[in-house]
Amino acid sequence: MEPAALPSLPPVLDLAGTAIFALSGALLAARLRQTFVTMAFFALVTGVGGGTVRDLLIGAPVFWVRDPYVAAVCLGVALVAWFTPHRWWEGQLLEWADAAGLAAYAVLGTAKALAFGVAPVPAMMMGVITGCVGGVIRDVLAARPSIIIRPEIYITAAALTSAIVVAGNLADLPRPPVWIVAALAGFALRGLAIARGLALPSYNRDGN
Amino acid sequence: MEPAALPSLPPVLDLAGTAIFALSGALLAARLRQTFVTMAFFALVTGVGGGTVRDLLIGAPVFWVRDPYVAAVCLGVALVAWFTPHRWWEGQLLEWADAAGLAAYAVLGTAKALAFGVAPVPAMMMGVITGCVGGVIRDVLAARPSIIIRPEIYITAAALTSAIVVAGNLADLPRPPVWIVAALAGFALRGLAIARGLALPSYNRDGN
Amino acid sequence: MEPAALPSLPPVLDLAGTAIFALSGALLAARLRQTFVTMAFFALVTGVGGGTVRDLLIGAPVFWVRDPYVAAVCLGVALVAWFTPHRWWEGQLLEWADAAGLAAYAVLGTAKALAFGVAPVPAMMMGVITGCVGGVIRDVLAARPSIIIRPEIYITAAALTSAIVVAGNLADLPRPPVWIVAALAGFALRGLAIARGLALPSYNRDGN
Repeated sequence: MEPAALPSLPPVLDLAGTAIFALSGALLAARLRQTFVTMAFFALVTGVGGGTVRDLLIGAPVFWVRDPYVAAVCLGVALVAWFTPHRWWEGQLLEWADAAGLAAYAVLGTAKALAFGVAPVPAMMMGVITGCVGGVIRDVLAARPSIIIRPEIYITAAALTSAIVVAGNLADLPRPPVWIVAALAGFALRGLAIARGLALPSYNRDGN
Repeated sequence: MEPAALPSLPPVLDLAGTAIFALSGALLAARLRQTFVTMAFFALVTGVGGGTVRDLLIGAPVFWVRDPYVAAVCLGVALVAWFTPHRWWEGQLLEWADAAGLAAYAVLGTAKALAFGVAPVPAMMMGVITGCVGGVIRDVLAARPSIIIRPEIYITAAALTSAIVVAGNLADLPRPPVWIVAALAGFALRGLAIARGLALPSYNRDGN
Repeated sequence: MEPAALPSLPPVLDLAGTAIFALSGALLAARLRQTFVTMAFFALVTGVGGGTVRDLLIGAPVFWVRDPYVAAVCLGVALVAWFTPHRWWEGQLLEWADAAGLAAYAVLGTAKALAFGVAPVPAMMMGVITGCVGGVIRDVLAARPSIIIRPEIYITAAALTSAIVVAGNLADLPRPPVWIVAALAGFALRGLAIARGLALPSYNRDGN
């Protein structure tokens, strides 16, 4: 497998994205009044979970296993979260940073899958998986209802971003502008959900 | 790895099997009154989950990632489930179709594992995994007790089918008739569970 | 990938470790009054889960898939657990055996990861994963709070062992003595938790 045109963020941005996701995992552990070890575990799982599942599915080496920094950043985030009040971190700022991370990773995940020769519809799913699965594993481990079964627009934003990247690829458009448009569209949609409480309708066809 | 004699269903049947499993995932999402995005996620996870875990374990490329149709079929099933009353789909017919899918995938999973050089006992487990793990992940995500911890005969039917395929392989019998017998045996056992409520006894040795 | 100096336990000890973990899975199934099939599934998942996740992450062939004995041992453990009162097996002896297994597998997992060229911090995590993830999957499947979210010292013991193995590797110390010291340290820490109820403090910085 010779992946061509593998997209990448500048390393600092990439680690920043991982750190934001890791922080959301560490904060959940803090809210559940867990120990430091659990907090570190949640930070790692949430920070790298989505990209890990994507890499396993597309047959790429798992990105953080041979990288000297990613896992260390997740541990560092857990340390910071442990020694500070969690109120410092929660609230609007984290939600907006998470929205930015979601959009960026949906682009990266989709583009990496396309570079590895994945077909269009599965490539779109790889974008969604990269953005969302870390949070899903975090919620399953904490035994709380996951983002998957809440009506809030979250996965949908990742799906929109991924779909635009795939569509741009099928139309053979130049990649960088497509990626920027895709990330902005997903960020805007998620932003509407944060700012206005936008949610999807639920299934309601009971045939009665 | 040069897998020899990889079994395959005619593509239409194979996609039909995936569609049935995907439908059972979509229907659970409908019963939980979820959104369309969740329904699509459940359809995908349930439709491809078992084969995905199998492929990761035996070191095969994940079957749906480079296939242009499988993921699209799961999304299509979710669309159909979304726009129709779920009562149309539930009940006996779906259970019997699921039993057929279970038996067929247990054969396919075991035979694929044997073709990849997997040892007999693990190969049997790959058949069980292919048939059952999609449903297990679906239930864990929905936070409901999974088929694994219910006494109903389900996994047992997949285990019977897989054991017959492995036994036939060890005895060097011609493959197609063994596969047919194995699928029929698992289908019949699962059918007894559906029609007669057949269940396994529970552990009851407390030493009192 | 040419892993050098892959550590290994004598096969009998290695299978004994798997059997102990498998037993803890089978006993949970017994306590939940499950069927034999569920018990076998829990034995397998708990016995091989941690090593499976580690092998997938580091890109090694999954250890039990091509091995003729490991899965069979897990099934054998389930048979023994099924036909005997679970009180025979529970209590202090099992806890101490589990502590020994935890320490041994944390060494093996870390050393295997280092042999496959994994970076130090992720290699430490592979040791933790090898020792603990089987139990985590077991608990998620049983829908009970996992060891991850209890304050008891368990994961911490695996982390101590793994950290010593990594430190010894970075300092280029001879491997066998480092591995023995690491295993003893983790076993002692876990032993203190069993004997004295040692636990970690919980997060408690609410900024109030």
